[in-house]
Amino acid sequence: MPKLKLGLPKGSLQVPTMELFRKAGIRIYVGERSYFPSCDDPELEIMLVRAQEMARYVEDGTFDAGLTGYDWIKDNKAKVREVCELVYSKAGYRPVKWILAVSNNSRVKSVEDLKGKKIATELVNVVKDYLKKKRVKAEVEFSWGATEGKAGTLADAIVELTETGSSLEANYLRGIDTVIESTTRFIANKRSYQNPWKRNKIENISILLQGALAAEGMVGLKMNVREKDIPKLMKIVTALKKPTVSPLTIPGWVALEVILKEEMAKRILPELKRAGAEGIIEYPLNKVIY
Amino acid sequence: MPKLKLGLPKGSLQVPTMELFRKAGIRIYVGERSYFPSCDDPELEIMLVRAQEMARYVEDGTFDAGLTGYDWIKDNKAKVREVCELVYSKAGYRPVKWILAVSNNSRVKSVEDLKGKKIATELVNVVKDYLKKKRVKAEVEFSWGATEGKAGTLADAIVELTETGSSLEANYLRGIDTVIESTTRFIANKRSYQNPWKRNKIENISILLQGALAAEGMVGLKMNVREKDIPKLMKIVTALKKPTVSPLTIPGWVALEVILKEEMAKRILPELKRAGAEGIIEYPLNKVIY
Amino acid sequence: MPKLKLGLPKGSLQVPTMELFRKAGIRIYVGERSYFPSCDDPELEIMLVRAQEMARYVEDGTFDAGLTGYDWIKDNKAKVREVCELVYSKAGYRPVKWILAVSNNSRVKSVEDLKGKKIATELVNVVKDYLKKKRVKAEVEFSWGATEGKAGTLADAIVELTETGSSLEANYLRGIDTVIESTTRFIANKRSYQNPWKRNKIENISILLQGALAAEGMVGLKMNVREKDIPKLMKIVTALKKPTVSPLTIPGWVALEVILKEEMAKRILPELKRAGAEGIIEYPLNKVIY
Amino acid sequence: MPKLKLGLPKGSLQVPTMELFRKAGIRIYVGERSYFPSCDDPELEIMLVRAQEMARYVEDGTFDAGLTGYDWIKDNKAKVREVCELVYSKAGYRPVKWILAVSNNSRVKSVEDLKGKKIATELVNVVKDYLKKKRVKAEVEFSWGATEGKAGTLADAIVELTETGSSLEANYLRGIDTVIESTTRFIANKRSYQNPWKRNKIENISILLQGALAAEGMVGLKMNVREKDIPKLMKIVTALKKPTVSPLTIPGWVALEVILKEEMAKRILPELKRAGAEGIIEYPLNKVIY
Amino acid sequence: MPKLKLGLPKGSLQVPTMELFRKAGIRIYVGERSYFPSCDDPELEIMLVRAQEMARYVEDGTFDAGLTGYDWIKDNKAKVREVCELVYSKAGYRPVKWILAVSNNSRVKSVEDLKGKKIATELVNVVKDYLKKKRVKAEVEFSWGATEGKAGTLADAIVELTETGSSLEANYLRGIDTVIESTTRFIANKRSYQNPWKRNKIENISILLQGALAAEGMVGLKMNVREKDIPKLMKIVTALKKPTVSPLTIPGWVALEVILKEEMAKRILPELKRAGAEGIIEYPLNKVIY
Amino acid sequence: MPKLKLGLPKGSLQVPTMELFRKAGIRIYVGERSYFPSCDDPELEIMLVRAQEMARYVEDGTFDAGLTGYDWIKDNKAKVREVCELVYSKAGYRPVKWILAVSNNSRVKSVEDLKGKKIATELVNVVKDYLKKKRVKAEVEFSWGATEGKAGTLADAIVELTETGSSLEANYLRGIDTVIESTTRFIANKRSYQNPWKRNKIENISILLQGALAAEGMVGLKMNVREKDIPKLMKIVTALKKPTVSPLTIPGWVALEVILKEEMAKRILPELKRAGAEGIIEYPLNKVIY
Repeated sequence: MPKLKLGLPKGSLQVPTMELFRKAGIRIYVGERSYFPSCDDPELEIMLVRAQEMARYVEDGTFDAGLTGYDWIKDNKAKVREVCELVYSKAGYRPVKWILAVSNNSRVKSVEDLKGKKIATELVNVVKDYLKKKRVKAEVEFSWGATEGKAGTLADAIVELTETGSSLEANYLRGIDTVIESTTRFIANKRSYQNPWKRNKIENISILLQGALAAEGMVGLKMNVREKDIPKLMKIVTALKKPTVSPLTIPGWVALEVILKEEMAKRILPELKRAGAEGIIEYPLNKVIY
Repeated sequence: MPKLKLGLPKGSLQVPTMELFRKAGIRIYVGERSYFPSCDDPELEIMLVRAQEMARYVEDGTFDAGLTGYDWIKDNKAKVREVCELVYSKAGYRPVKWILAVSNNSRVKSVEDLKGKKIATELVNVVKDYLKKKRVKAEVEFSWGATEGKAGTLADAIVELTETGSSLEANYLRGIDTVIESTTRFIANKRSYQNPWKRNKIENISILLQGALAAEGMVGLKMNVREKDIPKLMKIVTALKKPTVSPLTIPGWVALEVILKEEMAKRILPELKRAGAEGIIEYPLNKVIY
Repeated sequence: MPKLKLGLPKGSLQVPTMELFRKAGIRIYVGERSYFPSCDDPELEIMLVRAQEMARYVEDGTFDAGLTGYDWIKDNKAKVREVCELVYSKAGYRPVKWILAVSNNSRVKSVEDLKGKKIATELVNVVKDYLKKKRVKAEVEFSWGATEGKAGTLADAIVELTETGSSLEANYLRGIDTVIESTTRFIANKRSYQNPWKRNKIENISILLQGALAAEGMVGLKMNVREKDIPKLMKIVTALKKPTVSPLTIPGWVALEVILKEEMAKRILPELKRAGAEGIIEYPLNKVIY
Repeated sequence: MPKLKLGLPKGSLQVPTMELFRKAGIRIYVGERSYFPSCDDPELEIMLVRAQEMARYVEDGTFDAGLTGYDWIKDNKAKVREVCELVYSKAGYRPVKWILAVSNNSRVKSVEDLKGKKIATELVNVVKDYLKKKRVKAEVEFSWGATEGKAGTLADAIVELTETGSSLEANYLRGIDTVIESTTRFIANKRSYQNPWKRNKIENISILLQGALAAEGMVGLKMNVREKDIPKLMKIVTALKKPTVSPLTIPGWVALEVILKEEMAKRILPELKRAGAEGIIEYPLNKVIY
Repeated sequence: MPKLKLGLPKGSLQVPTMELFRKAGIRIYVGERSYFPSCDDPELEIMLVRAQEMARYVEDGTFDAGLTGYDWIKDNKAKVREVCELVYSKAGYRPVKWILAVSNNSRVKSVEDLKGKKIATELVNVVKDYLKKKRVKAEVEFSWGATEGKAGTLADAIVELTETGSSLEANYLRGIDTVIESTTRFIANKRSYQNPWKRNKIENISILLQGALAAEGMVGLKMNVREKDIPKLMKIVTALKKPTVSPLTIPGWVALEVILKEEMAKRILPELKRAGAEGIIEYPLNKVIY
Repeated sequence: MPKLKLGLPKGSLQVPTMELFRKAGIRIYVGERSYFPSCDDPELEIMLVRAQEMARYVEDGTFDAGLTGYDWIKDNKAKVREVCELVYSKAGYRPVKWILAVSNNSRVKSVEDLKGKKIATELVNVVKDYLKKKRVKAEVEFSWGATEGKAGTLADAIVELTETGSSLEANYLRGIDTVIESTTRFIANKRSYQNPWKRNKIENISILLQGALAAEGMVGLKMNVREKDIPKLMKIVTALKKPTVSPLTIPGWVALEVILKEEMAKRILPELKRAGAEGIIEYPLNKVIY
């Protein structure tokens, strides 16, 4: 049986990645030998590695495909095929940012003030590229972690990952620029992507992951409407999405069904009610594939 | 952008209120600065205050609207607009009661026996009104909490909140009357409710909260039925709720769909099967708006 | 009001049993007096007893019906009516096995090598019957538990329950035969089953429990398809399950709906997309009754 | 190297037993292969078995010594050497009782009223002996557990273990007699106890366990006293325990030290102060061996 | 048997109070009927009430004695006998402060700026007295809690309890004055204190509580020293506390023992070693009574 | 006031280091701003950094002193003054080892077989020195962690920290050599160590830490003995440690006291009792300084 070698990120992305695969219908069991999870899809051979190193191993063919952040792909300067973007992280469904930050009481106001100074970060290469682009010469020092404690003590500035900015505040730091924004990417080795079986397998996984992610925050709406109210209701609904209209056996009535963001649903539900829709229900979805 | 200032209850109602808003499609994040939660609806400006104080702040316009209990609205003698009733509490989907209780070994049998005695409670004004109505003159003393321990020791009787009565038993108390029954209310400031934008916003939230609450314990049933079996099946189903009938492409068959209490569903499912329904499925709902 | 006396298993099956009843729509509350749970179905009178003793009390009419394992029905040699099989256990949706096992370094290779030796087990009668069938004479000693530690020390072999085999490995044991496979059974007292009201009640519960169990791991798929694509799509879908086709109001399009294993869904979703299906959604189910 | 085979109880006594050994200075590690803990005393070979079965295996020489309850020694009618009594249990430092109990609303008042009735218990033999002594003929049925729920439903009475009586109350039971009181015992195989090395080892363990248990709730008191106050102070102290008096280099002063129950210490500390003792300290103890 | 009615604080002081009594040798069990704990001293009758209300009930004789904070004694303007001060709180062994605080971005710099403004607090009377002393007329509004969220929103300033100041920072508040510092006090009813038995009992408890509190952070040091080194060592040690010197049987050597703060011990241990002390040990203490 | 800048390790050593300082009498509070703990010794200014980076910062004078592992001192090739060795780690009181390991099914038997192969490790420099000494040319690749999963997949061998070897087993690895053994070291900056105030402060801390560590697992024994029994008892006791003998006021009796390993205590306690010692007590110790 052919196998696809798939790398998944160990660390902060691990739990949400497992959860996303579960929603996509692929159950992964992280057992005793924890770097090699088992899986209910016998065509997959999974290994866990740090997100930092993933692109490196996909580039050199150790894995056929893998999931990691755009930040670490860039930091590794890796030549890989990006199959799809997946906007999720440990903290939710939004990008993360690497912020250039200084101590609250530092005199540094912008990156230009860092000329000749020292910046501590885990993301050395990306920060060096950023400084080059900004034409600022500064020392970039690799930090093993606990970076937030260093600004104003062990370094003049830091570049650190943040999802909400609250960890900066908690450490009395002030952000002065965003160095890079990042989301998760599903990447493939370039040669593996030319093999027809592997490419098909990779694309199937991509469809399921995107379907599961698309269903996040989406809901189905179903309601009974009078045929005469259709134009009015269509104006509310079709602004968003093409609805499905199916006949009912009661003359003059049809059923209207539409898939949309829960966020949109909550906005139009009161309007639909006012426009004459009856028996409106909202139901949950597992996957949405357009 | 216009903003609606909304007060939500801090304390025992906080978690179920957040949960109800989440079901209604409004996500609220209680972060570090915990009295000012953020929210995915930019038109809302939320603050957490005690349920006891809510009506006061809605009345004076500090908040345009808020959620609190009927008990505390009455105790504050607040002049506010009640938008809708929402039957939920910390313990489930039922009203709570404030019980007049005495120690198990007290000789007091009814409220009349409390003439000239002392009653400890957090709900001073409501209890005073209750005594006036009962034409009983007794002292009402404000209690800072830990009230259940006071009956028979620091006071002759207490009036305390209970959802199940079990906390009375656990403290060797005997209930002798219900002073007030209370459910959660969505209330609005009277002037805010005359502002068209605010009123529309308040009503939209009301529809969503009610839709989410109505879906609690409700399910959808869908099944394929022979046209000839419709009368028989209708008798089972329509006793409850008007079902939706839609045509199938197989001649002689239609699809029948109905929304009902899970409790009812479990009663009629066996009957539906015996009456010839096929491929019956029951699915979950997020919101139900009639 | 007539009552059905129902015995439910206390111990490792208790939590998954309560969960299955909840999915079936019957809520059971295990309160303070923990052997007599209350229930939202007033026609049920529930008591918790050990799975080991259940069949004994259903046979003698103490209970009208009960849930227990096939293993303990056999060990009690109980004459009861089996209403339905329910494939679930503490660890998931699969049968459990009682394994005849010896220490890794034992010379015993098969049950025949146990002639004249001692076997420790909780399931004495089933093991005795097994040995009789195998024509092996060996001593069977009742074990109060902690049985896995006894193989090779206090006994020559043990017979112990296992769901995955991992507890055998962890104790350096080697399985040499499966003595009995067991699943949960819904059983009834023979006389109670002849009473029409009780039989109807028992069968209703059986339909709900089976419906809830059948919905485990199943999902609904719904999609819009062009009429001309139906044959192509039918080939993908009908291999699995007869789909429901209903008309849409847009000429040339129909809606196709099918209920199937989530595991199958994830396999065919990419194919359906390639074959022209649009707006595919997958939604969750509570119960499935064929 | 000679080894002592020691059986320790698996189940509710396991944690307090490990704790007592740790206080005695013997550290036991319950590792992966959980029935065979390792130990920092290389002369011990430990195995965990149920307290119910312990006496059986000490009697037949499988173990040289073991810890179990007096109740299960009696129920097994085992012929073993009792080395010492150790008054501790899961719930503290006091004996446990097996109580004959009936439902609160039963008419049974004493054991005599149980003539011809059914009693459910785990402790079958002890209960049979008890009935014989009381000259009451009744059926004793073995119960696999969940016994407390059976009184008044599946049996007329039960005999069940209780440390405080609160579990009886919680199940609406009324105790009518104590069948047996039990404490933990350190027992030895009779032949092993005649072997000099084994006997010496067993006695060393016994001294350490008793020393650790004796130190529970005991403290040391030390104070400086004037020689002239000695008679007065002795009256307070020696009522309890012979104190140690040692000279100080300051003329006219001595140091007084005594080991006693913390409970006593708290009573006499204020008196000692009033009687002229100075610099009184109370310090904790690990072991006390008289 | 005579009884002393003792009030203990429910709430944040409860756990450290129970812990202090335990160290003093008085074990208190907070059981099911949680306002009336049981106790291993049969002469005590204990009740839990809020610290806020304690002084009121000691003053009126409901309790003979009680523990509460100096802040709440003052707020109640209670006439009680203070038996002793006990410096401990939820957070450790130091006083707590009530801080007058405003929002970080408020223009208020000192209490004088609050003329005509509103201050929210739980400690109304103390704050009123404070304002009177400062000759500032301002409105003091009682707050039910969640006070920290009110500064700059619902009030112009707040007065709130803080043990470390960190909760102010976390809520973006700036302290501008300390209104009152408070420690725990053991107080007695004036009449009860004149009853000889009650007074003796109260003083015994006071000695034990102070002894347990004094032992907090204290240790014993014991060492062997050459007689010729005594003067040198005495200089180090006696600066702190009179040591006990006792003879050894080895000529020329004595044993030196001293009780002191662990904090001091850690400072002089290196010096003692350098000055020739040998075999120095430091051991823990339960109680210290001078 | 002069200050000593002290670096403490963040990460797996953090908790046991805080615990050791607490035993030494120095209380450290890790508060909100977690990289700068506060401390009850005002002469210390503490910062938390990774053990990996500590030696670097002590060498360059950022810190006057710090605690870290011998492994990381070597890897940093740092020129620092080693003040003392402290044998403790996250897992207990013993050294840790960095093991060269390969996959169970690798053909590599010794370090020589790794010629031309790749070794992954966090401890790059130490491994390079080790290979140089072994005259083996191999590639050493820095690993960000999750190293144990790399042997046989991403590298031919790994060098990884292990305290017990169990993590190797759990990952199906086979150790083939120990690269370095390591314990915790208290290190000082060379220049700081020449400053008299700083040197004295550093040595005081060193004495306290060693005293606290020495007391681990040690206990005090005290007993009363007859003078005539002294020779017999001395034989048992002095084999271990010189005891302290002090006179009692009862003629013919002396008190004997000795400090020794709890492990030894448990061996000789029974012997002491048999040899005539009376009133033997064992008490706990905080610090032991010889």
